[in-house]
Amino acid sequence: MRTTRRAVLSALAAPAALAQSPVERFVRFRIAPTSRPLWGRLDGDTIRELSQAPYLAARETGKKHALAKVKLAAPVDPLKLLAVGLNYRSHVGSRAIPKEPEIFYKPITCLQDPGGPIVHPRDAKNLHYEGELVIVLGQLGQGGRNLTRKQAKAAIFGVTCGNDVSERDWQNGPQKDLQWWRAKGTDTFGPVGPHLVKGLDYGNLLLQTRLNGEVVQKQTTADLIFDGPTMVSYISQYVTLTAGDVIFTGTPGSTKPMKPGDHVEVELAGVGVLRNPIQAA
Amino acid sequence: MRTTRRAVLSALAAPAALAQSPVERFVRFRIAPTSRPLWGRLDGDTIRELSQAPYLAARETGKKHALAKVKLAAPVDPLKLLAVGLNYRSHVGSRAIPKEPEIFYKPITCLQDPGGPIVHPRDAKNLHYEGELVIVLGQLGQGGRNLTRKQAKAAIFGVTCGNDVSERDWQNGPQKDLQWWRAKGTDTFGPVGPHLVKGLDYGNLLLQTRLNGEVVQKQTTADLIFDGPTMVSYISQYVTLTAGDVIFTGTPGSTKPMKPGDHVEVELAGVGVLRNPIQAA
Repeated sequence: MRTTRRAVLSALAAPAALAQSPVERFVRFRIAPTSRPLWGRLDGDTIRELSQAPYLAARETGKKHALAKVKLAAPVDPLKLLAVGLNYRSHVGSRAIPKEPEIFYKPITCLQDPGGPIVHPRDAKNLHYEGELVIVLGQLGQGGRNLTRKQAKAAIFGVTCGNDVSERDWQNGPQKDLQWWRAKGTDTFGPVGPHLVKGLDYGNLLLQTRLNGEVVQKQTTADLIFDGPTMVSYISQYVTLTAGDVIFTGTPGSTKPMKPGDHVEVELAGVGVLRNPIQAA
Repeated sequence: MRTTRRAVLSALAAPAALAQSPVERFVRFRIAPTSRPLWGRLDGDTIRELSQAPYLAARETGKKHALAKVKLAAPVDPLKLLAVGLNYRSHVGSRAIPKEPEIFYKPITCLQDPGGPIVHPRDAKNLHYEGELVIVLGQLGQGGRNLTRKQAKAAIFGVTCGNDVSERDWQNGPQKDLQWWRAKGTDTFGPVGPHLVKGLDYGNLLLQTRLNGEVVQKQTTADLIFDGPTMVSYISQYVTLTAGDVIFTGTPGSTKPMKPGDHVEVELAGVGVLRNPIQAA
């Protein structure tokens, strides 16, 4: 491979250019209910279709779609879904503040689209929302392992809203399981969206959750105990991370039960509103 | 689509044919250290290359490889890795026998090949083996949800050996995490292999684990509290399962620590021996 002086200078200039990069919004969408989801970049009310996920080597295909005519899908396509527990003091309550991020896995099958139903299992008795900032990883150095905090920061491609839906009786209550596999991992317990937003300072965004229109969670992401780069770096000391991996960063305050017929909204200022109805199984 | 009488009769005959089907052995392998893993069917010492995973619509490509000349990879390619805890009375000890299978997730990044090292993390103090029967799912009816026990049984494509490597101090000890994400999910904590075996009665196989040649676990899979079809059916009441998903079915008896320089073998009679060395990070 030949490397020209121009390419070298351009590569050297990239970090500065990134720091000044404007905010970009990406969506994943279907043009028919059963068609394969496509990726696109949002340009006003128009979606400019991409050849693949924006955190890979995507190019615009030249096709355009009207935002109003498509159905949005969860703007992620991960191999892994990770989450962090007890990451706001307001949610930790009387428990000890964790010394390291408390990580767990959600299965990728629990992802749900913006607008898609959160299905209330027949045997669930205590289904709660958890509004969260969600981080999406891009290209990672070091084979995705042992990232420094600085390398981890560079590996965060963008953010979106997420709802870490939790069945509290299965998590910690009378029907407590050994691990949170169904409490946090049942189908539809992982709505994310509506857009994947790049170039935003996600270190101080107002996070709000509304249940049937009433504000039930309100806190800034500046209050995270472990911020995005810290948790990405920590996870990578043990587990390989890959482009597209998704991390739910924890929920603030307290939460309430949801019942079929309710609707829940998670809003991150400058990112958007993730709205999902609760539906009986 | 036209359906001929021959096709209908052939479909009707399929279950009976399956019941009598001979044992088939499948492998996943690399022809060079960095090449993409391929699937194949084992025919004596020869691998007959397949176009894709045998649980999908695979056909033989016509290419053959000598088993001795390839490097075996983990004979699985799942979207999800599930596992069951406390599934032998001999391992439950003084704890209560679970009423339902106790499920947890391992990340797919923890898979390790037969012969590949189990890397002992620098900060690990109590790294244990757990020899296990591993189930691999094939095509699932019902969109992978709400399977009856009978449907679940039909969805089990084959079995292999697995080692659910566990750091006990991170799991339940002094460095206990809220969830088992690194105790069970650190890179290389999920060796499986050597072959994916179809057509075997996996309900009564002798399972043995050897540490440096000494037998340290020995029990039949007939002693599982929840058998394969029961756990697959149970999981599918909450979480969508897909072809290729892998389930570690639990470990019998007690376990011991492993240190760098050790080697561990998990053997299932009629399936094979999964051997992995322990290596310092």
